[in-house]
Amino acid sequence: MGDLGNRQSPLAGDKLLVFLSAPEDTKWTSRISQRFPGLKVCWESNLRPGGGFLLPDELPDEVWEDVTIFMAFNPPSAHRLSKVRFVQLTSAGADRWLDHDVYKDPKVSFCTTNGCHPPQIAEWVIGSWLAHQHHFQRYHNHMKEGFWEGPMEVDFEDSVGLRMGVLGYGAIGRQCGKVAQAMGMEVYAYTRSERATPESRKDDSYCVPGTGDPDGLVPAKWFHGASKEAINNFLSQDLDLLVLGLPLTEETKGLIGKEQFEILSKRKTFVSNVARGPLIQTDALIEALEGGKIRAAALDVTDPEPLPKDHPLWKAPNVFITPHVSWRTDGYWERVLGVLEANLERIDAGKPLINVVNKRLHY
Amino acid sequence: MGDLGNRQSPLAGDKLLVFLSAPEDTKWTSRISQRFPGLKVCWESNLRPGGGFLLPDELPDEVWEDVTIFMAFNPPSAHRLSKVRFVQLTSAGADRWLDHDVYKDPKVSFCTTNGCHPPQIAEWVIGSWLAHQHHFQRYHNHMKEGFWEGPMEVDFEDSVGLRMGVLGYGAIGRQCGKVAQAMGMEVYAYTRSERATPESRKDDSYCVPGTGDPDGLVPAKWFHGASKEAINNFLSQDLDLLVLGLPLTEETKGLIGKEQFEILSKRKTFVSNVARGPLIQTDALIEALEGGKIRAAALDVTDPEPLPKDHPLWKAPNVFITPHVSWRTDGYWERVLGVLEANLERIDAGKPLINVVNKRLHY
Repeated sequence: MGDLGNRQSPLAGDKLLVFLSAPEDTKWTSRISQRFPGLKVCWESNLRPGGGFLLPDELPDEVWEDVTIFMAFNPPSAHRLSKVRFVQLTSAGADRWLDHDVYKDPKVSFCTTNGCHPPQIAEWVIGSWLAHQHHFQRYHNHMKEGFWEGPMEVDFEDSVGLRMGVLGYGAIGRQCGKVAQAMGMEVYAYTRSERATPESRKDDSYCVPGTGDPDGLVPAKWFHGASKEAINNFLSQDLDLLVLGLPLTEETKGLIGKEQFEILSKRKTFVSNVARGPLIQTDALIEALEGGKIRAAALDVTDPEPLPKDHPLWKAPNVFITPHVSWRTDGYWERVLGVLEANLERIDAGKPLINVVNKRLHY
Repeated sequence: MGDLGNRQSPLAGDKLLVFLSAPEDTKWTSRISQRFPGLKVCWESNLRPGGGFLLPDELPDEVWEDVTIFMAFNPPSAHRLSKVRFVQLTSAGADRWLDHDVYKDPKVSFCTTNGCHPPQIAEWVIGSWLAHQHHFQRYHNHMKEGFWEGPMEVDFEDSVGLRMGVLGYGAIGRQCGKVAQAMGMEVYAYTRSERATPESRKDDSYCVPGTGDPDGLVPAKWFHGASKEAINNFLSQDLDLLVLGLPLTEETKGLIGKEQFEILSKRKTFVSNVARGPLIQTDALIEALEGGKIRAAALDVTDPEPLPKDHPLWKAPNVFITPHVSWRTDGYWERVLGVLEANLERIDAGKPLINVVNKRLHY
C-alpha cells in the first residue's frame, strides 16, 4: 500500500475520477464528498450522446489534472495517470491493462470489481443451460405456428445428479456452484493453486449478501494445477456442464482447443464461457460443435469480439451467443460503487484494499 | 387404510397393474416380484406404436382381471377397477379422477407422485424466468443475422432482492423457492391452511434428496386462507415472479382473472403457470399481456389444452408456451417407480402410505 498507510485523513488532497457507463449518481458523489473531507470527487459518463462509448483519452485535459484515484474499464494513455496511486477497475479482469505502464508500476494498486458480477452471470449460465436442457428454442419455434407438440416427442434431462465443473472457482464460479447445487447438481471445482484446507477454500473478495460460496463448501471435489495435464484431468471428470471462469492471461489463452474438446466429447459436455473469448480456440470450438463432440455451447464472449456478421460461429449448431452482456444488471453500478466505497473506507482507515489484483497472476 | 393393515404378507394375492409411458423396466418388475412374494406384477406401456397414447380402456379384458393395485395417469371405466384398493397416480394432481366412482369410494386410497416433479418443473420455472430477464429470445433473433448488439441497448435486472411468490407452497413450489433463494431472491409462500408453527411448515411427501425445502425454512413470509381476499392479499405483495403451484379444484378454477391481473399490474409481475391451465382465465390473461399489466407469462399449461393452432394466446405479447412438458425428465419414471415402491413397502410393513390424496381437497 506504500504511502496509503498514513492514518491522518489519508484521502485529503486526493482526486477521484469516476469514468462509468452511467450518468453521475449525485447521491453517491455527495455522500462520498461528505464522508471523506478533502477528497475531490469527479464523475464523467463514458456514454457518448447518440450511442457508443467515449474512450478515456477523449476526456479534456483538465479532468485528468491531479487524478490520484481512477475508476474505469479502459485505460487512458499512461501520462494521464502520472499521479495515480489506486485504480479501481469496473471489470473482474485486468486484461486490458497488462501492457500498461501504470499497471506495471508496483506502487499503484489495482482492484477488480470481483463479486459484483456473480449473481447476474450465474443467472446467465444457469438460464442458458436450462434453456438448452428444456428445449426452449424448439418451443419458441413451435409457437410461431401454433404447434402444440405431443409431450413425448423429445427427451428431457433434468439436472439432478448431473455434474458441473467450474474451471476457475472464483467469485462467479462460486455463485454458479451455489445455484447448481440447489438444483441437485454435483459441483467440481478447479483452482490454479491447491486448496487443501478449509481455510484455503475461503474467498474474501466482495460478495453480494446471501449469494456465492464464500466458505468453499459447495464443491464435492477440488482439483488444481497449472499444467496442461492438470487441466485435461479436470476436463475428463465426466462433466455435464463446464463453466469457464478463468482470467485471460498468457497462460490461459487458447487453453481449450482440439485436444480438450476431444476429452469433453466422452460426456458431450455443455460448455459455457462467461469469462473471455480467447480462452477457447474458436476454430476448434466450431469443429467440436459441427462434429457433435459437445452437446452445445453458450457463449457470452467470443474471439474475435465483436463477432463479425459473417463469422461461421454464428451458424454453428447448438450454439447460443450473446454480445458480452452477462455482466449487465440494473444493480451493477450500485454494486461497483459499493466496492469503490469499501476501498475508500479502507484507505481512510489504513486497512488493506479488497479485490486487489495479483500482478503476477493478473487477477 | 381399511384392510391394508394386515401385517401377514399383506401383498400376497394382490395384482399390480403398471400402465406407464415407458416399456417394462424388467429390472424393477423382477425386483418387486422377488421382494413381495405373492404379488402379481403386470406392466403395460401406454405408448401406441407409431405415436400417441393408449387409453386404459383399450387394454384387453384379461389384463384387468383381479387388479387390486393400479398405477396410471388416466382412469379406465370404473368396472375395470372393481377390486382395486390402492391407485398410485403418475401425476401430482388427481383432477382427472374427481368424478370417478372408484375415486369416490372411501375404501380406495389414491396417492400422487408428489415430489417426482419438483426438480425439473422448478428448472422450467427458473429457466423461463431467466430467459425472459436476460433477453435470450432477443439474442436468438440477432444470431440469425449475425448481429452483435452493443451491450447497453437494453436493460437487465438480475434476481437479487427480487421477490418470488409461490401460490401453493407444495413440493414443486418448495424447489422453486430453494433455487430462487440461491439466486438471492426473497420467497413468499401461500398455503391454503395456516402454517404458523415450524412443525406445520414441514412437508413429509416424497422429496428427491438434496432438493426442495422439506422443513419449510426458505420463505421469508407465509400467507394463508381460502378466501378471495386472502388470495388477493397475497397477490398484492409486490411480487416480481408469481409461481402457480395450486391443484385444480372447484375452488381454484379461474382463480386468476381480471381483478387479480389488476392487482399484479402494480409490480408488472411475471406469471409462471406450471400447475393447471384453468387456474387462469385465458381471456383475462391475454388482456393482461396485451395491456402490459404483467411483464410476461410462462405457461406450461393452458386452457384449453392442447391449445388450438389459431388460438390468440399463441400470439399474445411476452408469452412463452410449452405443451405441458415441464414434468418430463429422463429420470421421471425411475422416481415414480420409487414412490410406488415406497408405498408397496409401506403396505407390506403395515405403515401409512405416503403422498395420499386428501379427497376433500383433492390433493
